[in-house]
Amino acid sequence: MAAATLVSISALRDLVIGVLETAGVLRDHAEVAADRMIEADVRGFHTHGVFRLAQYVDLIERGGFNLGADVRIERDSPSVALVDGDDALGHVSMTLATTTAAKKALDTGVAWVGVHRGNHAGALAVYVDLLVQQGLAAIVMGVAQANRMPPWGGTEPLLASNPIAFGVPAGEEPPVVFDMATSVAAVGQIRRAAATGNPMPEGWMVDRHGRPLTDPTRMSEGLLLPVGGHKGYGLSMMLGLLAGVMNGASFGRDIVEPASDPQHVSNTGHTVVAVDPGRLRDAPAFATDVDRHVRDFVASTPIDPASPVRVPGSRAVEQRATAETKGLSLDATLLATLDRLGRAAGLDVSL
Amino acid sequence: MAAATLVSISALRDLVIGVLETAGVLRDHAEVAADRMIEADVRGFHTHGVFRLAQYVDLIERGGFNLGADVRIERDSPSVALVDGDDALGHVSMTLATTTAAKKALDTGVAWVGVHRGNHAGALAVYVDLLVQQGLAAIVMGVAQANRMPPWGGTEPLLASNPIAFGVPAGEEPPVVFDMATSVAAVGQIRRAAATGNPMPEGWMVDRHGRPLTDPTRMSEGLLLPVGGHKGYGLSMMLGLLAGVMNGASFGRDIVEPASDPQHVSNTGHTVVAVDPGRLRDAPAFATDVDRHVRDFVASTPIDPASPVRVPGSRAVEQRATAETKGLSLDATLLATLDRLGRAAGLDVSL
Repeated sequence: MAAATLVSISALRDLVIGVLETAGVLRDHAEVAADRMIEADVRGFHTHGVFRLAQYVDLIERGGFNLGADVRIERDSPSVALVDGDDALGHVSMTLATTTAAKKALDTGVAWVGVHRGNHAGALAVYVDLLVQQGLAAIVMGVAQANRMPPWGGTEPLLASNPIAFGVPAGEEPPVVFDMATSVAAVGQIRRAAATGNPMPEGWMVDRHGRPLTDPTRMSEGLLLPVGGHKGYGLSMMLGLLAGVMNGASFGRDIVEPASDPQHVSNTGHTVVAVDPGRLRDAPAFATDVDRHVRDFVASTPIDPASPVRVPGSRAVEQRATAETKGLSLDATLLATLDRLGRAAGLDVSL
Repeated sequence: MAAATLVSISALRDLVIGVLETAGVLRDHAEVAADRMIEADVRGFHTHGVFRLAQYVDLIERGGFNLGADVRIERDSPSVALVDGDDALGHVSMTLATTTAAKKALDTGVAWVGVHRGNHAGALAVYVDLLVQQGLAAIVMGVAQANRMPPWGGTEPLLASNPIAFGVPAGEEPPVVFDMATSVAAVGQIRRAAATGNPMPEGWMVDRHGRPLTDPTRMSEGLLLPVGGHKGYGLSMMLGLLAGVMNGASFGRDIVEPASDPQHVSNTGHTVVAVDPGRLRDAPAFATDVDRHVRDFVASTPIDPASPVRVPGSRAVEQRATAETKGLSLDATLLATLDRLGRAAGLDVSL
């Protein structure tokens, strides 16, 4: 593990925006992408934060995005909309989908907003955060960009580990926000196992004959397994249909991993559902009840007295405050990469 | 395994309605509950079908339902509603929520309908079926009535294995409908293991110290584990907040298992979300794409050539047709129970 350094959020933001703008991304798109990436890091989702900048820049250079993209609402009605991501950075289309869903849910009580022609948008929890901050509950779904998971009982990689995130606002407690992918293990975990020379536990991957694969260096031969067996299979498939096919976006055999063919429009799909709890019951009473349940869980008996029970998202508010006052903790490897990207872009930014 | 007999759906429906009506349930409530129970059996979800009739009758006799219930829409707006289940049989409130959601989604594109003061409503897939049959996509969530699962890292049963179901309509293929509970194992599976004298696999249950419990006869000492570890924990908690707390329904320490205290109003919560795919893209093109993906999955290489890949819900349409023409297959034990209930109700119905 490389040593960590505290980095100022505003300097980091300037660097990310500068790197993206130099690569040709529109200024306002670069700002939105930088904010969503940094929000993921602040939440502790480092695999979906500024760590991805190098990959985005590489894809931009290989023609992987539409740099003059016109991200817009293509279909609209009071509670439903479809966003055309126009192959821009995925953060841009997902941010428009989220702000659109928020407006509609505050206005009509509920919103269902789909995205097609999107791209990788980072951590879904970040978009849920934007909604719960406005007092809304949310379900956000996505189709991941690489098929590495077979159908249950199958051996062909027809599914990605499609993610889903949920959130509800609370009162005095932090909002409850939960974000999951539908494979047992993430690719990042397998790469870490390979880097440290450790075998993977059985249940993370199988080979193309459905037999357990535990050597992480053989990842490319293997398939990820769905979380909970057939349950994760069903969940991933439904997310692909609801957030992909229903928006006219890619799923199944349509999926082409961007790194393998950058100029193919990935047509990544997402769906944002937002609802105003105040339409169902008194909103302050709801917030008080969420607080009560969160406290019940946190105060309940843990298996290990040194590890109290945690509620999903419970540390996000505190992490945000710490990052804003003290800075964001980034490891030395990532810092060196960001520094290299900044210098390559001719920026005069030091983190 | 007891031998199975084919039973006529209309005779079974008459019996269930007759038994419920004799127990004091309003005729129209009895009809709705009978239909939803039989639909679960037709789908193969026998643990959530007419098998439950004996339990419902027992609860009715012990004062577990409001027999004069006025199930109604308590809060209403064009896309959002709250149903007051008034402690009737849960099938009645969930059917009203589903038909209300269908109307709203066909009218405005999307609907979010909550239920409070509901009860056990059988299989959620049955309500998803009602929506996909009208060309709608759906997400249905519920809070189960018995807390048998701890928070991740905890030892107190604060969570039920809350279910979620999803569905999308297809074109020529059957709709894709997927229904899951958030525990690894269902109580029914554990009872079956106990009955057959087999140990449970590790991972189904733990004892109150978090240690693996594999003796199914010790179920009452144990706790169910969430599917996928912390992922199933997060999912179950979010379902409890969205389908329970947000509707003013029970969750966490509020949950009282009906069998242990029938006269306590269970205040079971459910949420039905429906959306019209035609608001996001051309509906026939969507149906054609769903068909194409379903066929890709079914035709993909299986691990075992004798077990082709299946898509969730793929057999429901065929099962319904078979049940309607040839009858529903019920095992001898269940048939004897139904016969006993029919005779106790003084009915002249033979299955």
